Amino acid sequence: MELSKIGERKIVEMITKKFGIPMDDCALIDFDEQYLIITTDMVYEKTHFPEGAKPYQKGWYAIAVNLSDIASKGGIPMVFDVAIGMPREYKISSLKELINGMEDCMKEYGGNLIGGDTKETDFLTMAVTAIGKVPKDEFMPRKGIKIGNAVYVTGNLGKEASLYKNDFDKLLLVKPRIREGRFLARTKYVTSCMDLSDGLASSLYQLSKINNVGFRIYEDMLPLSEEALKMKKPVQFALYHGGDFELLFTLPEEKGKIIEKRIDAHKIGYVIKDKKILLIKNGKKMRIENKGYEHFKS
Amino acid sequence: MELSKIGERKIVEMITKKFGIPMDDCALIDFDEQYLIITTDMVYEKTHFPEGAKPYQKGWYAIAVNLSDIASKGGIPMVFDVAIGMPREYKISSLKELINGMEDCMKEYGGNLIGGDTKETDFLTMAVTAIGKVPKDEFMPRKGIKIGNAVYVTGNLGKEASLYKNDFDKLLLVKPRIREGRFLARTKYVTSCMDLSDGLASSLYQLSKINNVGFRIYEDMLPLSEEALKMKKPVQFALYHGGDFELLFTLPEEKGKIIEKRIDAHKIGYVIKDKKILLIKNGKKMRIENKGYEHFKS
Repeated sequence: MELSKIGERKIVEMITKKFGIPMDDCALIDFDEQYLIITTDMVYEKTHFPEGAKPYQKGWYAIAVNLSDIASKGGIPMVFDVAIGMPREYKISSLKELINGMEDCMKEYGGNLIGGDTKETDFLTMAVTAIGKVPKDEFMPRKGIKIGNAVYVTGNLGKEASLYKNDFDKLLLVKPRIREGRFLARTKYVTSCMDLSDGLASSLYQLSKINNVGFRIYEDMLPLSEEALKMKKPVQFALYHGGDFELLFTLPEEKGKIIEKRIDAHKIGYVIKDKKILLIKNGKKMRIENKGYEHFKS
Repeated sequence: MELSKIGERKIVEMITKKFGIPMDDCALIDFDEQYLIITTDMVYEKTHFPEGAKPYQKGWYAIAVNLSDIASKGGIPMVFDVAIGMPREYKISSLKELINGMEDCMKEYGGNLIGGDTKETDFLTMAVTAIGKVPKDEFMPRKGIKIGNAVYVTGNLGKEASLYKNDFDKLLLVKPRIREGRFLARTKYVTSCMDLSDGLASSLYQLSKINNVGFRIYEDMLPLSEEALKMKKPVQFALYHGGDFELLFTLPEEKGKIIEKRIDAHKIGYVIKDKKILLIKNGKKMRIENKGYEHFKS
């Protein structure tokens, strides 16, 4: 049977079960009072970048998506190890731009390049490993949600709509929420956190499965990006498209006001006992579907 | 200008210079009495594996080559983060075999899988990050050679010759020298160490450049593998072919006898002041050329 029959999330489930790995944005190594948090994201020319994207944007993106995982655990970025596969016809000037994009993203959000690998491949392939740290009592896991918690997202949703306007800076110069993640971690209010790389719907389903809870999300509370608002169905972009790299998190409702004053975060709903994931639209309940971007599936 | 004009080692030099990264097998993070040692190797279907290689062998290989880097620094393997790119037509059964190969190599030599990523790519691509640790006073760097030191290699050389006999187990089920690396590190005799992934000649040139020394290597002291000995020019395989993953190290000559009793290691020559890399053959001096496997170059 081929991978396309099961899709990325089943593949990951198969591997994580075999090795007893908890499903979270980052892996952990225990170091005294701290966790080292480690994440690897592979980025591939043909599936991640639209035609016309610039090397600088690609380099920035490869670093930023890893930082987004570090941010979702409340982490402080430390170091990067970067493996780059490129065709032999790739231009040296393009590689330099790619590296500049990586460097600028690190300068903006933290961490240093300490090593890596370069190999010859048919298409540009970047595998970035980011290592960060977080005091153990500030670590924000995916699992820990309480019924009745408020559900929040940082920033706004549906930014992938910019793809259709050919605005690749908006699409690829992702702003990882390191500052917001650190702030949330220090409050110790957060009961779960993950980043939105696969889209809001998919992320809610993942949190639902791990925490054995459901969600009631209010359509009119969704912070829609200006890019999404230019489209016919902005809410579809907010729910079912990847590329937002915002933080999705839960916390006791009464703490919400405190964090809203300090970071750009919006309440979008509540945690419910019933394992359904509902969208409330004009007072009517609808099911949010379990779909979003998934590799290996059409 | 295209990458093929400059080749892998120039590319790596360009990147490491920009970021001020020391040229070594692993990157370091300082942790109290220990270094965390980190390495990433990318392995690509078309450039790393002969046709007919099995998924189990490929999985083992991807882990083993990273362990070889950890071994060369005297490290104890801790964890792995693995990114796997695969085509959507890849068979689930093949992925399972691949993972079994990875798992068996970890069981044999240490370390656990703690995380990773799976993505859709046109050809199998594995980027493995291995993290190990080593007490600071046992770390074996590339730089530190003294004139007059003896030069050693573990095991034997020219194993890539097995490629021409279609013996893929010998070629791909690489045995990383973790035990030997740990033993050498504990002695604190070693003045430099690296692994032989690109071939002996290329590795000697890299050590020469970093340490500003030369080498006198004796042809009749080279431990040739039985695979190489079956070929017409076994010494060529020992010098200029990759795939050995043995440790190349230097130490004061008088300490050699001690380590020879405990691990399978062979003296092959001496460190000289003159920056030449010479092969002594029947009492005659010849230059060893600076060539070996290099990505991006024909």
